[in-house]
Formats: sequence, C-alpha cells, structure tokens
Amino acid sequence: MAKTDDTAIGVTHRGPDPRAERSRAAALTAAQQLLIEDGWAAVTHVAVAARSGVGRTTLYRHWPESAMLIRDVLARSFQADHSAPTGDLRTDLISELLALRAMLLDSVAERALRVMIERATADRASAIILEDCHRKGTELLREIVEAAKVRGELPGDLKADVAIDKLAGPMLFRRLFFNGTFDDGYVADLVDRFLDSYALPQVQGTD
Amino acid sequence: MAKTDDTAIGVTHRGPDPRAERSRAAALTAAQQLLIEDGWAAVTHVAVAARSGVGRTTLYRHWPESAMLIRDVLARSFQADHSAPTGDLRTDLISELLALRAMLLDSVAERALRVMIERATADRASAIILEDCHRKGTELLREIVEAAKVRGELPGDLKADVAIDKLAGPMLFRRLFFNGTFDDGYVADLVDRFLDSYALPQVQGTD
Repeated sequence: MAKTDDTAIGVTHRGPDPRAERSRAAALTAAQQLLIEDGWAAVTHVAVAARSGVGRTTLYRHWPESAMLIRDVLARSFQADHSAPTGDLRTDLISELLALRAMLLDSVAERALRVMIERATADRASAIILEDCHRKGTELLREIVEAAKVRGELPGDLKADVAIDKLAGPMLFRRLFFNGTFDDGYVADLVDRFLDSYALPQVQGTD
Repeated sequence: MAKTDDTAIGVTHRGPDPRAERSRAAALTAAQQLLIEDGWAAVTHVAVAARSGVGRTTLYRHWPESAMLIRDVLARSFQADHSAPTGDLRTDLISELLALRAMLLDSVAERALRVMIERATADRASAIILEDCHRKGTELLREIVEAAKVRGELPGDLKADVAIDKLAGPMLFRRLFFNGTFDDGYVADLVDRFLDSYALPQVQGTD
C-alpha cells in the first residue's frame, strides 16, 4: 500500500512528488516574471517553457489555458500573510487589512490583479478567476465579521459583503487609481470608523 | 473681427467649428465601440479612421497617441450626470454617488476604466490619464466635502482623499471584482454610515 501523509496540505494520498513541486514552482515563477515584464499576452506556454525549463507537455497538462497559470500566480500571492483570528474584532480586522495592504503593494499580485480586472469583462474564464480571488482573498474577513455577529458585536443584519466592500474597497480604490499607499494609521482609521458606525454597545447583563 | 461666443464651453474665441465637432464626436464614438468590442489594442488610428470616416491626418492631429483617444472616451463618460450641489450634505453625497454608479454601470466607461487600470502600471501615459480621471471624477465629491468642513458639518482635519476612498471605494470594489450592482439603499447606507462616523453634531449657539 502507498504511504499516506495526512499532514501535508493539498496533497493526494501518495504524498507530494518533490520534482513535480519544483517544476510547478519554477513554471509559476516564470509566469509571474513574464506577467510583470510584458503583461498578460506574454504569458504563453512557449515563453513559460523557455524561461522555466519545464517541458511544454507538462505545462499543458497542469494548466491547459494560460488564464489558469495567471490564476495560480494570483492564488500564491493571496495566500501570503493571513494570521489566525484572535477573537478580538478590532485586532482581527486590522490584521486582515494589513494582509490586504501587503498584497496590494506586492508587484506580482498587483499586476496580476489589474490584468484580471481588465480581462474580466472580455473573457469568462478571467471573470471566474477574479471572483474566485475575491472569494478566497476575503474569506477570513468574512469569517471575522460573521463570528462578531454571532458574538453580538456586530448587527445580525449586517451583510458580510457590504462590510467587506467598506473595509477593503477604500484601499483598492486608492491603490488602483493612483498607486496610493497606506500607513498603519490609515488602516486603523478604516477599522475604527467602521466600528464607530457598526459596533453594538457591549453592555453586560442585558440580552 | 471674429464673432465670439462666450456661452459655449471649452471653445476658443472663434467659436466651435460644427464640422470639427461632428468629426470629433464620430471619432470618439468609433473609438469607444472598438474599445468595447476588442479592447485597448483595437483602438488604432487606422481602425478609428475606417469606422468613423474621419481622415487619419485629422485623427493624428487631435490625438497623437491612441491613449489620448481613450482618455477622451473616458472623459466623456465621466462628465455625465453630475448635479449641482444643493448645500445639503447628505443629499449632495448621495447624488454624487448615484452619478458614480451610473458611470460604473455604463459599459463604455467601465470597459475604458478597466483598460486604464491594467495599463497604468505598464505605461506612464495611462497612469497619468487614470490619475486625471480620478481627479475629475471625484472633483465634485471633493468640493462637497470641503464645503461641509467649512460649514462645520465635517471635521476640519478630515482629508478629502480619505473621505473619497471611503465613499467611492466600496462601489468600485464591488463592481470590479464581481460586476456587483448597487440599489438606492446601498448608496444611501454608504452615505449614512459615513455620516454616522464623521458628521459633527450641529448644536446652535455654540461656536
């Protein structure tokens, strides 16, 4: 019987093949370099093969379309730097917005995001990838908001999507339009003003 | 002496040349159709000339680069539907966000905006155009915020840029990521929550 490795993440019952993992990483690194240097159109299987040394057949097997390569480049950036919620609403919101800031200031993630935003109206695959990025990128923010609703710290009728628009939207707006940056004070103010408006008073002894 | 026409907008002392205005409008309409159909790369002087019937020499004279054509397509969309401020803060903010909504839901403006967002990191001309769009598109919002600060309805230390991020950012975020739409309640809530957090109490008789 094959050995199992239950501690590995996202791995089949045979465990990861280290050579396949290295090829995958090399291909994604090449794809992200091409994306930054020359934009979406430069991320072709031929160019990624030439730069990474990974065979074209292997590339096509893993990523039948170049949109899928870009999706995985984006996914790699989105995974970075999320920290586990502590249960303190203000702390958790600030730390998630700092993770978003890191993503927006990461040149690979930012470039890939802009490319997907542009292509999403023209091409259904890109629209799906962008929605997927939104979902994964805001998953933890959504959990934090939902948990605070359960604890009675945020109103039960607050829609998580609306909360996410208000927390993440201002940073995205500033970044996309004029490459704006955000100091810690900007991020804290975003959360504090949000809580000014939404946080329920925590009075002990009432229901 | 040449007749003057002081009531016309953006016109030299000789008044507008109706034929030149028609050519300009035809060229911009062709450019916006090409942009929507096939994206940025399709907006070439050759293609715009073929579709609009305007001569290539004329096109090059008015718009030496195709980025400038796209800028004017965007500018045309941004100009639409702003209403004059009434002096009532809530009313004025809501009406400006409704103008932003109309822009985001306009397929030409939205497509052009996405294109500029993508190109802004690769190409300096596009970055300048995007900043310019941001400046013009939020000009009235900025005036409304500044006037409310002078009237003592918003804090004197509130930066207009931060206010604009919080008012416009959530809608842009929702629109760009998953083609979200906004009902009137969404827009009113955005303004009301903003005012919850920022509006100063208006007590008569205090300074």
